[in-house]
Amino acid sequence: MSNQLHGKELLYFEDLQVGQRFVSGTHLIDESQIKEFATQFDPQPFHLDAEAAKNSLFKGLVASGWHTAAISMRLLVGRGLPIAGGLIGMGAEIAWPNPTRPSDELHIESEILDLKLSQSRPGRGIATVRSETRNQRGEVVQVLTAKLVVPNKVATSEPE
Amino acid sequence: MSNQLHGKELLYFEDLQVGQRFVSGTHLIDESQIKEFATQFDPQPFHLDAEAAKNSLFKGLVASGWHTAAISMRLLVGRGLPIAGGLIGMGAEIAWPNPTRPSDELHIESEILDLKLSQSRPGRGIATVRSETRNQRGEVVQVLTAKLVVPNKVATSEPE
Repeated sequence: MSNQLHGKELLYFEDLQVGQRFVSGTHLIDESQIKEFATQFDPQPFHLDAEAAKNSLFKGLVASGWHTAAISMRLLVGRGLPIAGGLIGMGAEIAWPNPTRPSDELHIESEILDLKLSQSRPGRGIATVRSETRNQRGEVVQVLTAKLVVPNKVATSEPE
Repeated sequence: MSNQLHGKELLYFEDLQVGQRFVSGTHLIDESQIKEFATQFDPQPFHLDAEAAKNSLFKGLVASGWHTAAISMRLLVGRGLPIAGGLIGMGAEIAWPNPTRPSDELHIESEILDLKLSQSRPGRGIATVRSETRNQRGEVVQVLTAKLVVPNKVATSEPE
């Protein structure tokens, strides 16, 4: 198994610490991306039609919250959170304090909140990670607090 | 404003009751959808490559959890949860107790858990809705408990 991803060292459970922080690359979203995602998964007027969106709660076109979530995942998978074995979430809390709008440039700031070794599966741990998705003005458009399955280095490298 | 969506009556805050249930239509997912979404948003081997996925935690190709979430939104927006003003989520808890696999046919079963009139915005309420995404064997692949902004009928129809 490779222990590098895009030149970053991949992290095992033993490598993680509460308070450890990570910053992702960026993603620039535009109106066509917003409409394409919405057409497929969230076809509501405030995601599809800039004119109709002016009269909505949002006062203009906004991305689906699930589109913001999907882009955030792309940023985390890319280089944002270089965890060995990949990013496997058991579940999460998600909130969208501000909408994502056309021409927003998004990035992620993550912090490890909690680490627990799995009782049922000794070769793994569970990391609770808070990931804020911010735009170019520093406004938080999404807060994702996810529980991730992270392999234990010793268990992964030694035969069972 | 239209008060119908696909022949279903649109529901205002006053029309909702705790315990009220809704069932969506269905969506059949296949390997090409799984790979297309993953290529764009979650490019990990267990979402992209059936052979590589056999050696993963999942023992075979699975959809990104965010893909399951996006399809679930599509089912809710389509006819699953006919709320006036659209489906606008403030935030949610999400869990994926089982993976979504190729050839799964998904549908949603939703239940209203809680209703609160907004204190700051008298024209709106907040509905807490639990939506289970189930496959054709009845297995739950996602549980989404979302807080939705729902307009009040009286406030919407009367001039302010």
